[in-house]
Amino acid sequence: MKKFSIAIHGGAGTILPMFMTPEKELQYRRGLQAALEAGSSILQKGGSSLDAVEIAVSSLEDFPLFNAGKGAVFTNKGTHEMDASIMDGNTLEAGAVSGISTIKNPVQLARLIKEKSGHVFLCGKEAEAFGKMHNIATEEDAYFYSEERYKQWLDVKDSDIYQMDHSDKLEQGEKKFGTVGAVALDQHGNLAAATSTGGMTNKRFGRVGDSPMIGAGTYANNATCAISCTGHGEYFIRAVVAYDISCLMEYKGLSLKEACDFVVNDKLVKLGGEGGLIAIDSLGNIELPFNSDGMYRASLKEGENPFVAIYK
Amino acid sequence: MKKFSIAIHGGAGTILPMFMTPEKELQYRRGLQAALEAGSSILQKGGSSLDAVEIAVSSLEDFPLFNAGKGAVFTNKGTHEMDASIMDGNTLEAGAVSGISTIKNPVQLARLIKEKSGHVFLCGKEAEAFGKMHNIATEEDAYFYSEERYKQWLDVKDSDIYQMDHSDKLEQGEKKFGTVGAVALDQHGNLAAATSTGGMTNKRFGRVGDSPMIGAGTYANNATCAISCTGHGEYFIRAVVAYDISCLMEYKGLSLKEACDFVVNDKLVKLGGEGGLIAIDSLGNIELPFNSDGMYRASLKEGENPFVAIYK
Repeated sequence: MKKFSIAIHGGAGTILPMFMTPEKELQYRRGLQAALEAGSSILQKGGSSLDAVEIAVSSLEDFPLFNAGKGAVFTNKGTHEMDASIMDGNTLEAGAVSGISTIKNPVQLARLIKEKSGHVFLCGKEAEAFGKMHNIATEEDAYFYSEERYKQWLDVKDSDIYQMDHSDKLEQGEKKFGTVGAVALDQHGNLAAATSTGGMTNKRFGRVGDSPMIGAGTYANNATCAISCTGHGEYFIRAVVAYDISCLMEYKGLSLKEACDFVVNDKLVKLGGEGGLIAIDSLGNIELPFNSDGMYRASLKEGENPFVAIYK
Repeated sequence: MKKFSIAIHGGAGTILPMFMTPEKELQYRRGLQAALEAGSSILQKGGSSLDAVEIAVSSLEDFPLFNAGKGAVFTNKGTHEMDASIMDGNTLEAGAVSGISTIKNPVQLARLIKEKSGHVFLCGKEAEAFGKMHNIATEEDAYFYSEERYKQWLDVKDSDIYQMDHSDKLEQGEKKFGTVGAVALDQHGNLAAATSTGGMTNKRFGRVGDSPMIGAGTYANNATCAISCTGHGEYFIRAVVAYDISCLMEYKGLSLKEACDFVVNDKLVKLGGEGGLIAIDSLGNIELPFNSDGMYRASLKEGENPFVAIYK
């Protein structure tokens, strides 16, 4: 049996301390800690990394301040459209879903798709129907309502503005990429990654970001690493970010740290893509790089103290 | 000014000569030739690879025997759901769309998304609405109806069988992956790739394959290559096939031929993924590898005779 590692994120962006109260910061830290503990307790008991990332992301989805699951932001129609994905680094099997509502934990639907559908990527109402066929937990629209999110949407709903984030006001200079994710290495040496998002406030035209894209927002391969991204999804798709890090390790012999630095702080910056990611390699090394001002993040290596941070 | 190259495909699979009549083979060859000429005439005049792949794929979409655009197969609801994507190797800009009906040429909607939406990937009815806002050509459902496709669907509609292909009968041993695509290098040294599909006959649950996935079914980068894939999409997504070839060239120094051989005939085979792809590098080299029995394909290098083939 080997050591285990886990890392989680609750989104990256321009998170300015001036707009953060001590109470709110404490809430965020508690949300991260709860998810980290949920995932690491699975790993501690010898459970699979796949279960650990599913449980950790489910915990983040249930936490109302992160933009995923219960905390999902409003689209330009006043609805919720959520995306999620999961990948098993041992088998390279993956599941992904986009444009769903009423599913309590989108990451659990992604896992169900991986295991029961014969497909990788399902979309929209029909993906929900697949989940319901398999008795996945659902919630009424009211479950996904929060006054804060609704106000965020009212501020921009009659405009063409779409927010990449779950900030109070774009003009306040807060720009947060609302996504959650988890990566883990279990005691059996298997890596896994999962990502979930409520998308962008006031998003239009059925826009899908990188979160449900295997290779872009999520990737796991026992030979290299497990990755979950958060950021301006369009750039992460074009740069195929998660798989790029894996390829830099496998084909160019870079370490996890070197690959993460190059992709997040060089390639993405040159392309104009803001955000970050969480990464674990097959040795349990953890990297949490971001090129924005902050990223809600936490990690734990077996035998070490948990790490929880928001700012740089 | 440099030389130009173009390659197109109309899907890969088990295309058995015993089920092909000379008349039908001639029709397929004419469809491929028409698309090759449409694309190469753009390149001959000094036009962009982006225009060339859009025009070539539009021509394949208009041709009723290929499973894309007019020839799209029926879903399990008797509807048509089409996916497409396009990528510019010069800027790494990309556009993609999935789950649309009524749009005459899905590849043109993917291009419009790349250029006018501020996003990369749009989905479903709202993506159609975006296209219509920009006056994209639409067609009634009747345009996408063909007696042959309808019969294919009737054969399986009350079953759980979904066909990866546009074959007459699964049990006849024909297994064709219905996708079309084009890759091109223009005289300015710019690479581009585009892919379009009508999906699988009798497909369920809003399944999306690799065709609209940047990095999986479609990728273009002037530094390496342009790729369009056709095959069992789930495996192509998990293997991030198109970007994998680019990474093998960029990070491992493989030639286009070496990278294509390794991914299509080794990695994909080991994973269980059947299909093929078309590829052009920045020198205009063309590769058309497939691990199935056949692939509808054609290519042209400036100054050489066009190549058109179906079987191995």
